[in-house]
Order: sequence, then C-alpha cells, then structure tokens
Amino acid sequence: MIDTKKAAALLQTMNRILLLTHVRPDGDTIGSATALCLGLRAMGKEAYLLYNPEITETYLPYAAPCWAPEGYEPDHVVSVDVAVADLLPENAAPYGERIELAIDHHPSHGFFARESCLYAEAAACGEIVYEILRELTDITPEIALPLYVAIATDCGCFVYSNTSAKTHRIAAALMETGIDVSGVNKQLFRTKSKVRLKMEARMVSEMELFDNDRVVIMKIPLALREEMHATETDIEELSALAPQVEGTDCGITLRELCPGKVKISVRSGARVNASEVCGQLGGGGHKAAAGATVEGTLDEVKNAVLHAVETVVSQ
Amino acid sequence: MIDTKKAAALLQTMNRILLLTHVRPDGDTIGSATALCLGLRAMGKEAYLLYNPEITETYLPYAAPCWAPEGYEPDHVVSVDVAVADLLPENAAPYGERIELAIDHHPSHGFFARESCLYAEAAACGEIVYEILRELTDITPEIALPLYVAIATDCGCFVYSNTSAKTHRIAAALMETGIDVSGVNKQLFRTKSKVRLKMEARMVSEMELFDNDRVVIMKIPLALREEMHATETDIEELSALAPQVEGTDCGITLRELCPGKVKISVRSGARVNASEVCGQLGGGGHKAAAGATVEGTLDEVKNAVLHAVETVVSQ
Repeated sequence: MIDTKKAAALLQTMNRILLLTHVRPDGDTIGSATALCLGLRAMGKEAYLLYNPEITETYLPYAAPCWAPEGYEPDHVVSVDVAVADLLPENAAPYGERIELAIDHHPSHGFFARESCLYAEAAACGEIVYEILRELTDITPEIALPLYVAIATDCGCFVYSNTSAKTHRIAAALMETGIDVSGVNKQLFRTKSKVRLKMEARMVSEMELFDNDRVVIMKIPLALREEMHATETDIEELSALAPQVEGTDCGITLRELCPGKVKISVRSGARVNASEVCGQLGGGGHKAAAGATVEGTLDEVKNAVLHAVETVVSQ
Repeated sequence: MIDTKKAAALLQTMNRILLLTHVRPDGDTIGSATALCLGLRAMGKEAYLLYNPEITETYLPYAAPCWAPEGYEPDHVVSVDVAVADLLPENAAPYGERIELAIDHHPSHGFFARESCLYAEAAACGEIVYEILRELTDITPEIALPLYVAIATDCGCFVYSNTSAKTHRIAAALMETGIDVSGVNKQLFRTKSKVRLKMEARMVSEMELFDNDRVVIMKIPLALREEMHATETDIEELSALAPQVEGTDCGITLRELCPGKVKISVRSGARVNASEVCGQLGGGGHKAAAGATVEGTLDEVKNAVLHAVETVVSQ
C-alpha cells in the first residue's frame, strides 16, 4: 500500500500510460480515470483510457476525448476504481497481469496490482485522484469537472453516508476552479427519462416487504425492460429507489440481466452489512452498498438474498 | 441593509428575543431560526421561536425545544427566512410591526423590518445565520445540526443550482463539529413514505406536457390526497418531482389546497424566470424556484400559469 504522495511520485516516473476502468462503468471510475488522464497529459505525458464497451450515454462525453487508439501499446498500466481484477472489462484481459498501480477506495480491494493506493474511507475514488493530482499539476476546470462527476456520483450528490467533511471541502475546491456544476447536477441527479419514471412507478406498485417490513425488494424483470423499451441509461442507478422506502433499512433491487442471471444490489443501514450479504452470494462492495451477480430466476435469487440477509443479521 | 457583522452586533445588544418563521415552514426557516435561538441562548440570552402552527413532523423535532411559552412578551423581534410580511403566520400578527431585524436570502425580500440582513446569493438563510453566529459564539454540534438541516434542505442536499463553493465549505465546517448528518440525509432526502411513492407514481402517470414538451405540469388534486389518506408530510416537496422530467426546463406542480384554491410551484431552467411567472400570478420567489397561491379550479389555474409562462418567455 502506498499513499497519495507516493502514488503521485510513481506516476511521475511513468509515460505512455493506459488507464483501466471497471465493468458497468459509473461516474466514479470514468470521472476519476478521465481526470487522471487529463492531468497526466497536462504534465506532458501520453495517457489514454482503455475503451470501456459498457459505457453509457451518461458518462460517454467525459471519457470520449481520452479513449486509447485501437491496439495501443502502453508502457504502463494503471487501474482506477477497480476493486478486484474480475471487474475489469474483457478487453482489459491483455493488461490484467501488468497493472503497476491500482487507485481504489473499495474495502474489498483485491490487491491485484504491483502497488495499491487504497483509501477505503474515501467517499469516491475521485477524492484520492484529486489528492494525487494536487501533487502533480494544477487542477484546471477541465480536470475539475470529471473529478466533480466522480465524487458527486459516488456519494449520491453528497447525500450518502460516505459523504465526509473532506468530500465537501474537495467539492468546494473543484467549484472554485470556476466550473459550473449546475448542469451536471441537473443531468445526473435531477433528470429522469419518462421511461425511467414509469419503470419506477411500476417497481413501487410491485415492491415486496419482508423481515417485519424492514427489508424491501424491488424487481426489474427483463419483460418490464422490454415492455418499456428501456435503454441502459434508463435503468442506471434504479437501485437507489428501494432504499428510499420509509421504515425499511435494507433496500434490495433484483435486476434480471438475462434469463437465469440476476444482478443484486443491496443498500443498507447499520443493522445489515450489505458487503457481507453480497459476500455470501459471491459478490462484494461496501458496508452500506454492495452487489452480486447470481444464477437463477428472480424468485430463486429473491429467496437466496433473503436467506443471506437472515444469516448475516443473525451472526 | 446591514452585513452579517452588523447583524451580529445588533443581536449582541438584544435580550428576550422572539424569532419568527414563515408560513408552510421548511427546513431553512426552522433550522436557521432554531440554530440562531440556540446560539443566542449559548450567549446567556433568553430567546424563543414563535410557535408555527403549520410545522410538520419532519421539522418539529428541531424547533420543539425552542417554542416560546404562550403569551410570551419579548423585548425584541427578529424574522428568519421571511421574504415578505404576508408570509408570517397569523399568530405572528401582534409582532409584525415591530420586527427589528430580518435575516433573509430571498431576492424578492420586502424590507418590512427596521434592519435587513439580506444576501440574495446565499443558497439558504442558514448560510447567513452561520456567518452571524460565527461572530457571536462557538458553533457547537447542537447548533450545527439545525444549521445543516437549513442549508441542506434549501439546496436539495447540494444539488440545486443555488449550491456554491461556500455552501460546501460551510457544510464541511458544520460536519467537522462532529455531527452525524447521515441520519438527517437519510430522513430528509432518501426516505419516502409508501403513500408518497404511490402519489408520485400517480402524478407521473397523469403528467401533461406543453410548449413543445418543455413545460411539464403535475397535479395534486384534493381527491388524490383524500384517496391516499396523505398527510402534510407525505406531500411535502412533491413539487421537486415535475422538474425531473427529461427534456423539460419548467416543472410546474399544481396542488389543490381546498376547492377553488390552488398552490402553484414553478421550478425552472434559464429559459423561464420562475419568479416572474409567479409574480404575474401574485406570488414570487427565486429565478429558478417560485410559488403562488391562486383562486380557481385546477384547470383554470393550469391555463393561467401556462399563459403566465408564455408571457414571461416572450418578453
């Protein structure tokens, strides 16, 4: 493990750097990697992001100027916000064994890189990248905007329990570079497509409560997605809905990825350790937010996750 | 107009102070007044909030320790987050003519008090109260929590366009007093009653689009409220839903207060000045968020507000 100063010093020695992001890329992995890439370029280095085939329209505009040319042969490889090697996209396979630096904030980090710069208490990987970049270059508005996206998305725009005083101080510093975050906030946190609003309405009408109404399960069947012609962007972060139901402290979303395969998202309060629940099912994450992908029908997976919650709570 | 230093000096000269909040009290008026009350008490002064008859369960716990005894005879009267004298609750009538200091952040402020401490660019009145209290006393965790509530509620937990770097810096300072804001954030911004979720689902299914789909109108008829047995808390801030519809830049919520009386809430982007729209209908507020209460049926008021939008946009 190395700190942000040492990570900065290590990056200083590199050139021709390829940055890797994680599967189902979110604002933190894309925003952090983009900001790092732009910072390295501002230092006169060559740096690229490996194309992430699952990028959604939401985050594409940030990463687009940074995609590596096809067949790019880097001298150095760095992963950003990647908890374990299994979470690298398939096209990252050629680089998986030669990652020299992993910058991450997941407590479940797998230490797959030669050096790891891990701060498990950081609300977002963007906080760590901010500290690293401060050592290396000016935080220009161009760098500040994707960093703001990274940080704001991973703390739900400063509402999740991972938000710290430091998170707010970094947000203030980024805004003081002159970036206008109101457009980003509007797009990322205050805009829902009509399809998404209708899907949410359906998920609410069909939600189920368990464990003395403390656990709520919402489902996104493939059929619903098809009926609504929902895009990947429409269903992004739909797992934020279940934990909002008053009186519950464990919101579980089951999303049917394909027949026989279900993605579980668990968002929980102090009573239920989401990371342990998902750990029981082969996944992982944070105490308050974790995930797993499991084989089975929606009903089978529902029973499995309820059983996992029961096991973890009774431990 | 006086600045926060002078407002602090003026408060320093006062004792036996009654603080007034506005009708349909929100987190900012209650949180700011409560924090100011606790700060004045920490200085050894006698201070109270005038009971606000419309207080909801959401904010009652903050204000409860501060309510003035019935028939309290103050020596000084201060209003907090009150834009115009008309927005004082009825039971404030005996004090309306003798307000010595108004602390406020509404651009439409009516200058009804002897002295006004107005910062129209502040995201919340809580920011101004924070600056005033810093001059007077330690910001203890007891004071920091209602101030956090004041600031966080008025900027939608740091998502609205009024959020500034300063807003984040103050939030950081408040959190550094040691308060745990995760419970507050969860309760205020990440919890919805089942009734509320169902009302939202209905509002979504019945929303109407106008002006080339840029204006969306959602309605809360009395009948829907009765059918759902919705409480005041269930429908609080339901006006935040309409502005979320993708592709629109003007979200209007019409809430039938009683037969023949409708409350209009307008939330808008740069194209539509919400304050001017509501000004046309006898109301007011901020450029991006304003309100008015109008006589008429839901349909009549819908037509009136659409006409007002058209007038303002074409000016």
